[in-house]
Amino acid sequence: MAKITETSPLAPPSFPALPAVAGFRFATLEAGIRYKGRRDLTLIEAAPGTSVAAVFTKSATAGHPVLWGRRILPHGKARAVIINAGNANVFRGAEGDAAVKAEAEMLAAALDCAPEEIYVASTGVIGERLPVEKIIDAIPALIPALAVDGIAAAASAIMTTDTFPKGALATAELGGKTVTIAGIAKGSGMIAPDMATMLAFVVTDADLPPAILQPLLLEGSDKSFNATTVDGDTSTSDTLLLLASGKAGNTPVTGIEDPALAAFKAALDHVLLDLALQVVRDGEGAQKLIQISVSGALDDRAARRLGLVVANSPLVKTAIAGGDANWGRIIMAVGRAGETIELARLGVAFGGTPVARNGGAVPDLDEAPVAAHLAGQKIDIDIEVGTGPGKATVWTCDLTHGYIDINADYRS
Amino acid sequence: MAKITETSPLAPPSFPALPAVAGFRFATLEAGIRYKGRRDLTLIEAAPGTSVAAVFTKSATAGHPVLWGRRILPHGKARAVIINAGNANVFRGAEGDAAVKAEAEMLAAALDCAPEEIYVASTGVIGERLPVEKIIDAIPALIPALAVDGIAAAASAIMTTDTFPKGALATAELGGKTVTIAGIAKGSGMIAPDMATMLAFVVTDADLPPAILQPLLLEGSDKSFNATTVDGDTSTSDTLLLLASGKAGNTPVTGIEDPALAAFKAALDHVLLDLALQVVRDGEGAQKLIQISVSGALDDRAARRLGLVVANSPLVKTAIAGGDANWGRIIMAVGRAGETIELARLGVAFGGTPVARNGGAVPDLDEAPVAAHLAGQKIDIDIEVGTGPGKATVWTCDLTHGYIDINADYRS
Repeated sequence: MAKITETSPLAPPSFPALPAVAGFRFATLEAGIRYKGRRDLTLIEAAPGTSVAAVFTKSATAGHPVLWGRRILPHGKARAVIINAGNANVFRGAEGDAAVKAEAEMLAAALDCAPEEIYVASTGVIGERLPVEKIIDAIPALIPALAVDGIAAAASAIMTTDTFPKGALATAELGGKTVTIAGIAKGSGMIAPDMATMLAFVVTDADLPPAILQPLLLEGSDKSFNATTVDGDTSTSDTLLLLASGKAGNTPVTGIEDPALAAFKAALDHVLLDLALQVVRDGEGAQKLIQISVSGALDDRAARRLGLVVANSPLVKTAIAGGDANWGRIIMAVGRAGETIELARLGVAFGGTPVARNGGAVPDLDEAPVAAHLAGQKIDIDIEVGTGPGKATVWTCDLTHGYIDINADYRS
Repeated sequence: MAKITETSPLAPPSFPALPAVAGFRFATLEAGIRYKGRRDLTLIEAAPGTSVAAVFTKSATAGHPVLWGRRILPHGKARAVIINAGNANVFRGAEGDAAVKAEAEMLAAALDCAPEEIYVASTGVIGERLPVEKIIDAIPALIPALAVDGIAAAASAIMTTDTFPKGALATAELGGKTVTIAGIAKGSGMIAPDMATMLAFVVTDADLPPAILQPLLLEGSDKSFNATTVDGDTSTSDTLLLLASGKAGNTPVTGIEDPALAAFKAALDHVLLDLALQVVRDGEGAQKLIQISVSGALDDRAARRLGLVVANSPLVKTAIAGGDANWGRIIMAVGRAGETIELARLGVAFGGTPVARNGGAVPDLDEAPVAAHLAGQKIDIDIEVGTGPGKATVWTCDLTHGYIDINADYRS
């Protein structure tokens, strides 16, 4: 179990005030799966007919709940999500699949829906048996506890090594109505395994079909969760769900290109990025949030890859932890990314101050503004690679002793 | 400059006794490039007609000495190598190229050869101007200092953050003669940038042409330097040179498939792996040497990639640092490698004790032998992925507070 429980210095001042979202209720309780004295089981109930979109980990050793989720997603509807913290239910063979099925069937019977409308998420230690009987036993008490104002409690109950609960909110005009988008997430050490899996659940009262929700979620997650990294590791259990109850009663949208979607899309992107950055701000041991903007790559995909190679470099991350303007390490990381660059146009800036330009160091650099910027909590790094129009922004945190403390003695 | 200068706990007990190798002389001196009070400039002189093979970093931001080396390698002959520590001569544009050229021309004139026979290696900070005049001024004093027994001093003079000098030796029968292979290397935090660049120089009195040396070196480096990692970062300046003077007078070898080469190949592989493992043993902050053997991959290349993804996982490396048998993190890393695996056959063993087998945890595992193994300095991890005949062994070290100490405040 993590030794460090002090709130991250990069945490927002408080959890946001999240309003009720029509069509959704939340319940939490102590099931005693691993932790003692805290709520570790969460139920999100969605009104019948709720549309669902999802992004799951690409891991080849994905957990049993992810295998189930991938299978039921084409069904397109969701009636509930059940989430436990403390055990990830990964790598347990038929026993792990049976546990997920038992949860889905029990909830389907209780909520009078098909098992294919029940999503399951588990986060915690990998490879140990999930005590699914504790979940099954808890479900009868969980359902009467469902409440429209339970989302903040849910944000806390899904936490593992997180040092603060994560929530985000946006509203948008859509088809003649104001719709609400509210989300919660857990994760610290994106995208890290064990108890540091990233889970995010976003609910909205918008009336949108899965065929529209899914591409919106994919695009939004590419610019948020998939553009952030703490240590480059990918969890077996990462799950991002978007549920749309339709209770807002907006007029239907004709398709993904409908201009009426623009405001909703922007609001969804805002919620996803807000949640993703909160995960980075809770990166294990993080003292600084690092934003890396790459321009001049062949295309946006190349730019994102360049940014992520820099963001995952332990040498860059330790330099930032030390407040060291060691841009040579950025040049190194750019060089090993395997993307096309134009060395004679390569440039790097810290906090807007160029330190390298056109393939060489900036002569007679005044390091004072750079040092001042690096002493802060939010570090901006701009990288120009001089070959094309591709741009991307990615986020990470610094690599500190806290990361070692948390991860070197964590399971036991 | 690194703050930690204590010798790595994983260092060999002493520097090996390296004999003179016919055709080679070595000289070192204090040129004051960056360090004070230590030798930082090294000259390796090779007899006229010496064959050369080389492996350079694949970085797109490679240093000026590497750009020069890539250009002259087709020439096939080497008369000298000049190496400075303290400044990597990287990312300096035309000025950086001119510095290399000045070194090569000065030495070519002094040794009466073509500039294309002079290799240059620089290791140290990236992006700062190399004070090449200090090197040029030193060359007249360096040449009379050349000595056949200078290789141990050279192993020390090329060091940067290294905590011990690295040398290796082997002999082999080749074409009726006993030939000697001696090598030196520097690097800690393979393959890390700045002053932690990996440089290795191997000399032999064997008579072998570049067309045979180059494939031998490529194959040997794939199983040694390219199978080791400390932090996954790649230097701008990594250079591995193999020089063969021909002074042993062995009978010629007919080609790369000649069975007479077998013993030489084995001896060269031994020297390369010995040097590479010494670099890992000097990994920044390393307390444990980790050997990861992957079997059952589609092919050897897939196996190596799987091994390196595990070896580069900060979560695996911190778990080992903490002596934690957290095999779930290995499953996680295997899952994200992007290689084909058979989940139902996946298995992991620590020190020969299986902890996961056939896609699940080993039931009722006695953790005592695993804990005892993880308390040691040499950690063996075996991973079976159950899809094919591919095998590979890779090496890394654990990730500790020492790595952060060294790298968070290193340039200044």
